[in-house]
Amino acid sequence: MAKNLAEAFKPTSYKISGHTPRNVQVLKHALEQVDGEMLSDLYGKGEVIENFQHKMADFLGKEAAVFFPSGTMAQQIALRIWADEKQVKRVAYHPLSHLEIHEEDGLKELHHIETVLLADETRVIELEDVTGLDKEIACLLLELPQREIGGQLPSYETVEAISDYCRKRKIRLHLDGARLLEILPYYQKSAAEICALFDSVYISMYKGLGGVAGAILAGDVSFTETSKVWKRRHGGDLISLYPYILSADYYFEKYKEKMGHYYQDALQLAEQFNQCPYISTLPETPVSNMFHVHLAKPKDEIEPILVEVYEETGVGLTSYTRESGGEACYFEVSIGDGYGDLPKAALEETFTLLKEKLRDRG
Amino acid sequence: MAKNLAEAFKPTSYKISGHTPRNVQVLKHALEQVDGEMLSDLYGKGEVIENFQHKMADFLGKEAAVFFPSGTMAQQIALRIWADEKQVKRVAYHPLSHLEIHEEDGLKELHHIETVLLADETRVIELEDVTGLDKEIACLLLELPQREIGGQLPSYETVEAISDYCRKRKIRLHLDGARLLEILPYYQKSAAEICALFDSVYISMYKGLGGVAGAILAGDVSFTETSKVWKRRHGGDLISLYPYILSADYYFEKYKEKMGHYYQDALQLAEQFNQCPYISTLPETPVSNMFHVHLAKPKDEIEPILVEVYEETGVGLTSYTRESGGEACYFEVSIGDGYGDLPKAALEETFTLLKEKLRDRG
Repeated sequence: MAKNLAEAFKPTSYKISGHTPRNVQVLKHALEQVDGEMLSDLYGKGEVIENFQHKMADFLGKEAAVFFPSGTMAQQIALRIWADEKQVKRVAYHPLSHLEIHEEDGLKELHHIETVLLADETRVIELEDVTGLDKEIACLLLELPQREIGGQLPSYETVEAISDYCRKRKIRLHLDGARLLEILPYYQKSAAEICALFDSVYISMYKGLGGVAGAILAGDVSFTETSKVWKRRHGGDLISLYPYILSADYYFEKYKEKMGHYYQDALQLAEQFNQCPYISTLPETPVSNMFHVHLAKPKDEIEPILVEVYEETGVGLTSYTRESGGEACYFEVSIGDGYGDLPKAALEETFTLLKEKLRDRG
Repeated sequence: MAKNLAEAFKPTSYKISGHTPRNVQVLKHALEQVDGEMLSDLYGKGEVIENFQHKMADFLGKEAAVFFPSGTMAQQIALRIWADEKQVKRVAYHPLSHLEIHEEDGLKELHHIETVLLADETRVIELEDVTGLDKEIACLLLELPQREIGGQLPSYETVEAISDYCRKRKIRLHLDGARLLEILPYYQKSAAEICALFDSVYISMYKGLGGVAGAILAGDVSFTETSKVWKRRHGGDLISLYPYILSADYYFEKYKEKMGHYYQDALQLAEQFNQCPYISTLPETPVSNMFHVHLAKPKDEIEPILVEVYEETGVGLTSYTRESGGEACYFEVSIGDGYGDLPKAALEETFTLLKEKLRDRG
């Protein structure tokens, strides 16, 4: 029986996406330089958590920051705070927002907040979507980059215009910045410059930043202090969050300056994909370290080809493909530290083979 | 200026409560024996989490178990599931339940569940409190031992009778077993025997069991599967929980058989306290590794005496006292591995001094 894609992907010597494998070594490395005598945080207090929160608040240009076990928790809480403030239990976001498709409707089930979906599954939110809102909302959530459509971005001017409009209309603007650092090279802005356009900001510590888990939520002190009360209510005010904090800090330092490289790598790699028959990337020209690879062939025709390429080259492109419409499929590429280890020759061989096989069986 | 109690406690060579200090070494130790190549769990899946969940389900005699980042999250979810099942948004527990006093009303704010408080702040819940309920409830939560009143317990026959009654009346019975292992020596029962009386069970992995953080929620498969959906809604379904799981497993193995010793130590130590003037323990005779030390003197008279004792003996009894009524105060003692390191002579000297000082200034 033919190997499936995930099985063939696992033993490949090089993987184009991500950092090192998500194994226990990731945590061990981060702890190596930490003194064992360092005291644990204690329910949100103590040097280890407070120092990191200050550091991230400074980095994001906000008054204060709170470390959360997850972005799911942090973002629901942000939206709840803004909904309570305005006494309007309605917020707006993109139909493919993490809150809408990956959280089992926590926002609705736990916080009873109604959602208005802006734009559609093919594009990002534009100013007209916001000015055209016909219902009152407490908060607009913008996800930059919009992950589920390949990490697309509105123009920076659009973000500024939306921010302006929201301020005038007293709509709070929240940034889902799970991948905020990954877009700084394209926008040519600092994190603080972008965050200044938003009332509250979430960033993930484990995606491009490579930590074990965890998230930062930042904003004014009154906002972050209220978020701590909700963090306790959610069961996120753990006695010890230091395993995540220490690894977040370690990998933040390690990867924060590399986002420019990853972006350049993504540009080159997308070009390679776009030269293959039946393949196009979304966006065609990436605006961050990520993009989606769309294949105009059914999953069951594509996957055996990928398996052969992996086995002949030792280069793994993806562990899965997802169907998109009837006769097509796609997968996500997200450049991290692993890509740098990939020899140029192996990459060329991979694309030569891929093109041949797609042509032969196309 | 005289040192305060917390400052004087910190540098003492021996501390009567707890295990080793809550520092990063706790995690480092647990990771030492773990192969760095071990893969992370991934949103609740993978060997590291599934194996530990199976192990804990077996230990507790339940069909299935789920690892949670916190007990706060696990217990709210348990009560929500039972409330939804019966379509009755009302549960009962003790007025000093963790849910009532330490969770910023998460159960009410997030789940809109009404609570009925049984018994009072001086005693545990008895059968009559349950049979006397005049409102319909979906679930009764019993906390064994009842931490905030010194870790008191009802008789085992009472727990059996309450379980029996609840089953007949279709009231779900949930065990807040944050310190479940700590009461097995007194009840002379296995964890599974006690858990068999309950529909759902929570245990903490970081109190007596000494892990970094985390909790287990156990019950039937239909219950635990639903709890996973709520875990995601709460933001507790982290990409990686392994730092907590690996430490929970390591310290579970290290401490689970020691609870009998800790219980015996607590019995002896309580006796020593009870021989001091103005001091009595609650309960007078401990039923687990814990008890409260009540002092019939105001905080500001007691604390300087404790500071002197710590400085002369190097033995720390507590880092705080809490006022109880006008002229009295108390603190909690919870025996762990630290107590075994304390030389008998130092302990005797401590109590000799404490008695003298209390008598002289009494």
